Amino acid sequence: MAAEPVPIDDPADPRIASFVSIRERDLTGRDGLFIAEGTVVLRMLGGVSTRKNGFAAEAILLLENRLAGIADVLASFPETVPVYVASAAVFDAIAGFNMHRGVLALGRKPPPERGAALLGRLPETSLVLAGCGLSNHDNVGAIFRNAAAFGADAVFLDETSCDPLYRKAIRVSVGSVLSVPFSRGSGAEVMLAGLAEAGFEIWGLSPRGAVPVAEIPAARRIALVLGTEGEGLPESILSSFHTARIPQRPGLDSLNVATASGIALYQIALAMGRVA
Amino acid sequence: MAAEPVPIDDPADPRIASFVSIRERDLTGRDGLFIAEGTVVLRMLGGVSTRKNGFAAEAILLLENRLAGIADVLASFPETVPVYVASAAVFDAIAGFNMHRGVLALGRKPPPERGAALLGRLPETSLVLAGCGLSNHDNVGAIFRNAAAFGADAVFLDETSCDPLYRKAIRVSVGSVLSVPFSRGSGAEVMLAGLAEAGFEIWGLSPRGAVPVAEIPAARRIALVLGTEGEGLPESILSSFHTARIPQRPGLDSLNVATASGIALYQIALAMGRVA
Repeated sequence: MAAEPVPIDDPADPRIASFVSIRERDLTGRDGLFIAEGTVVLRMLGGVSTRKNGFAAEAILLLENRLAGIADVLASFPETVPVYVASAAVFDAIAGFNMHRGVLALGRKPPPERGAALLGRLPETSLVLAGCGLSNHDNVGAIFRNAAAFGADAVFLDETSCDPLYRKAIRVSVGSVLSVPFSRGSGAEVMLAGLAEAGFEIWGLSPRGAVPVAEIPAARRIALVLGTEGEGLPESILSSFHTARIPQRPGLDSLNVATASGIALYQIALAMGRVA
Repeated sequence: MAAEPVPIDDPADPRIASFVSIRERDLTGRDGLFIAEGTVVLRMLGGVSTRKNGFAAEAILLLENRLAGIADVLASFPETVPVYVASAAVFDAIAGFNMHRGVLALGRKPPPERGAALLGRLPETSLVLAGCGLSNHDNVGAIFRNAAAFGADAVFLDETSCDPLYRKAIRVSVGSVLSVPFSRGSGAEVMLAGLAEAGFEIWGLSPRGAVPVAEIPAARRIALVLGTEGEGLPESILSSFHTARIPQRPGLDSLNVATASGIALYQIALAMGRVA
């Protein structure tokens, strides 16, 4: 059961200090906190907090007219999580912009999971994504959304990829970054070597890939590797592993990396019999 | 050959008045002009202006340090198109924000094409997209990018869909809205009836679609119909035409509409033998 809503009349109220000007100063990396925006992400946060996967809600801040409509979502949070409610004027003065749709939550991240630990708890049959240099938060969020849609078991990101728990990535992922297990931190080579050692068939996705994605053979464990938008995967990676391409018209800018991940995941998930 | 660059030292210079504060006041719909941002879109604008498909460049505004690097792009514009060059301070004072990467162009739209006219000039074998209520500029831009990648012949948008020549849609499309023919304006029912009459097999894409997208049979003319993110296509449309779904994990928020369009287009383009 949710806590009794607490009205906030002063944007300087210390109880909502963590929500002040969230657009300018992103909380990621600071005190292990993150900002969740919107009803869909709040619902996901309520669900994962309950599943005890390490994520927890610290506080919720709502526009007063949103309160009634999301009573069922609030009910999924324990009553130890304070629910603050503000008028539109106070809300905007606190948050500093109007893109949040009147629903914000402050979450606490679980301790970062090491790649080896995540690898160790993957199921015998697994489909995972590995990202090298994914530096755009929108793309990372969209890739997690696709990972959830096609049942990927985990996402591995190298140290040059951005943090999926950045506000905008969480929003674009519609909360999937809270449910799809991930690890981030090592160099691309170490990350991919670890996956290979754990029995993964490693497929780099590139417009110059050797086989069409529809011909990636089913395997017990498959890792789909994505490179940064524009540059793509470096030759050192493409030459060390299997490579696949998405058939498309020649002579054009290639697909957006998130869209490409969706097409390749769709095709691999079909081949592995994970969706129907 | 491009025009000789003209230095601009005063943000109030009347020659660059159309570039002032482009973030706040979008030019779409006003005087038939649009704003193109970034090198990739500028290159596309140069190409389509040359192909005389109705798009034309009116002026180019560059950050001074970008000039040398894009000489080849500038060479694709006639010398009647003025090229203005400004320092970073002046540039930011003109454009009002720093997301343009120092490359802006003012373009002129062709007269809007009526749906019937566009239908009339499509090839005998065609693949087209039809959008109903696509109100998000990022999604519309991304859908055009996918249309270009998979060789769609045209995009039809109903009157409730947003303008693809809005600044942000152009950017996300990496300029594809300038190359993929489109029409926008009628109601969804009229638009789809026109496509059916022109011999198109009409396939609505929905999580509740009857057949998996991989089972859409090849046909001479196929129209893939996309609904608004969240709501999806209305029942009245789904019950009147063929429907297809993208196999995915149950119980999750469905795929982003742009990603879904990419997956369905990929699958249909393969079936029609349009990509390999």
